[in-house]
Amino acid sequence: MKFTIKKQELNEAIQHVSKAVTGRTAIPILNGIKIDASPDGVTLTASDTDISIQSFIPARREEQEAISLEQPGSVVVPGKLFSEMIRKLPASEIDISVQEFFHIAIRSGNSDLQMVGLDPEEYPVLPRLDESRMFSMRSDLLKTMIRQTIFSVSTSESTPVLTGILWNMENGRLKFVSTDRHRLSTRESDIETAADLSFHNVVISGKNLNELSRLLPDQDMLVDIVVSDSQVMFRIGTILFYTRVLDGTFPDTSRIIPQTFKTELVTDTAAFLDAMDRAYLLSREDRTNIVRLATLPDGQIEVSSTMAEMGKMTERIETSELRGEDVKISFNARYMLDALKSIESESVFIGFTGAMSPIIIRPNGGERLLHLILPYRTAN
Amino acid sequence: MKFTIKKQELNEAIQHVSKAVTGRTAIPILNGIKIDASPDGVTLTASDTDISIQSFIPARREEQEAISLEQPGSVVVPGKLFSEMIRKLPASEIDISVQEFFHIAIRSGNSDLQMVGLDPEEYPVLPRLDESRMFSMRSDLLKTMIRQTIFSVSTSESTPVLTGILWNMENGRLKFVSTDRHRLSTRESDIETAADLSFHNVVISGKNLNELSRLLPDQDMLVDIVVSDSQVMFRIGTILFYTRVLDGTFPDTSRIIPQTFKTELVTDTAAFLDAMDRAYLLSREDRTNIVRLATLPDGQIEVSSTMAEMGKMTERIETSELRGEDVKISFNARYMLDALKSIESESVFIGFTGAMSPIIIRPNGGERLLHLILPYRTAN
Repeated sequence: MKFTIKKQELNEAIQHVSKAVTGRTAIPILNGIKIDASPDGVTLTASDTDISIQSFIPARREEQEAISLEQPGSVVVPGKLFSEMIRKLPASEIDISVQEFFHIAIRSGNSDLQMVGLDPEEYPVLPRLDESRMFSMRSDLLKTMIRQTIFSVSTSESTPVLTGILWNMENGRLKFVSTDRHRLSTRESDIETAADLSFHNVVISGKNLNELSRLLPDQDMLVDIVVSDSQVMFRIGTILFYTRVLDGTFPDTSRIIPQTFKTELVTDTAAFLDAMDRAYLLSREDRTNIVRLATLPDGQIEVSSTMAEMGKMTERIETSELRGEDVKISFNARYMLDALKSIESESVFIGFTGAMSPIIIRPNGGERLLHLILPYRTAN
Repeated sequence: MKFTIKKQELNEAIQHVSKAVTGRTAIPILNGIKIDASPDGVTLTASDTDISIQSFIPARREEQEAISLEQPGSVVVPGKLFSEMIRKLPASEIDISVQEFFHIAIRSGNSDLQMVGLDPEEYPVLPRLDESRMFSMRSDLLKTMIRQTIFSVSTSESTPVLTGILWNMENGRLKFVSTDRHRLSTRESDIETAADLSFHNVVISGKNLNELSRLLPDQDMLVDIVVSDSQVMFRIGTILFYTRVLDGTFPDTSRIIPQTFKTELVTDTAAFLDAMDRAYLLSREDRTNIVRLATLPDGQIEVSSTMAEMGKMTERIETSELRGEDVKISFNARYMLDALKSIESESVFIGFTGAMSPIIIRPNGGERLLHLILPYRTAN
């Protein structure tokens, strides 16, 4: 293997795959990045067994030569060291060649670098997924759907399946569900897809979807997605991102979402968010984050919180709609903040089903995003 | 105490003093910020016994009323909570008043806040320093002098006096010295001052000077400094910063700085820094950070480093001057990087006194900044 490559192109591809280089795995070869050089271009692959990322650098990009190949081949380079070093090399072009025993010679400007590589034959092969089950969706939509549900995944490893987001596809409607047993988030979206494409109980680790999110561009670009029983693959331009599907059965949450409310209110999302943020400051004692919300006879709502021996706060917020029974309820301010931050519409709908029953938070007039919070059972 | 204050002014003053609010001290009142309201303005004071910071908000600033005072007085507020809360209050004006038992009422927009304060009489009194021993220097110069010497302070608490920077003043020349026994930095500057103002063995904690640095503006503004036996005070506009002087005698380092060299070279600061940065990547094994430097017969120098089982790098660097004996020397790349980063001139002078003897790094043509590094005693 021997080629010359533009430093910037190589650097970008390394950035793409670096999230799958942990440097902490017990399998030494997985601390490496696999380089494959062919006449078409150079492919970098990294894998930590949980996620695998591949980034392809085409030999020519926009009429410009990015790579000059002298001899095709493959090698595995030490991941962390290679990424740090390439970023710091002095010249805009880098020569990389593999010598005997997978020794790698890297030259750039006056810098001469030798690295000890590993046998590419020993590197795990990425799964081949059945692309007939592929569908495509907009990158920015996927990113939004992840952002609006990821905070409700469980951080406890006691029920691993709850550390992921459930993906369901049925009749061209993609639905995400996440829950940590104290709160729940769901988000749906219509996707153009083959009518018979459906899947259920595909659960992807929140951590991995977070990494995927960083690779998703904000612009209007299509991402191809292939779902199999054990893996999901995302194609983002020249990047392939594979994640394992979590084992276990995601609980059926459809029945816990109330359809009618005893109290309903609509208020300004930003104003309510800011008030909640202030109440949160005084709610952090013992990590309970308890805040109280009460409806007032004049159509306002009052948010309050107390921190023992420190102080308390009370704030009144206007509502644009308030109907049904009076309500006095306590809940976790952090959960409410997370839900409110995910809402893009100017006003938010909040539905109550009683002091001990679920609270529903939705964009006002929007049905596709829904958050549920269980209240605290408290005397005040 | 009762006044109305502009949120922005109060926020800025809180930012100034917040570095002296640890929230971790065993003396509860020191977790607080003392507020003094007088017709002239409002003063905030915070102290963690090691540093104390006072910030004054004048009642009027630039013809604008910043504070409207109804009743003068003092109180101590819970530091962390007060700073977080003030930052998040909804309106641009804030009413603050003290009620019975040091209860504080804060109102801004629709937010009503109660905080439990403490008796201001129990707050420690800041020392009064003899201002006849005051001198003044430019803020940007002081900041530069700290930046150029602070990295050589010791991080080990076994010799506390070495965790500080030594300040000496003699004949209108201010000198900073720092050393961790493996390296040493000195920086001098002429200061306009009373001819008889001199002090010796004033050692100020590097950590505290770091905090001071954050408060120093980059522009050309005078900072007043008062040095006493136990405290140093800095006046930066409306901010007063007090730091304790470290106990102990700083070692006499004047004799270890060589005056003549066996080998001298001058090279481009940025190019040498970049090469050292690359060599550093391969030197981090066992935290020794060993890199080798050798002069070459053609007037270049070679920098190299090796990481066992990973790789090695070699790089040649041009010099503009190279005279004296050949040299082959090993040293800590981190120390060299720190020294080079502090040098503002385009070219750097490096003097060697033998493979086992000190290396001197100076801006080329500059005498006021000097770094000394002890080499490693290694076979290669």
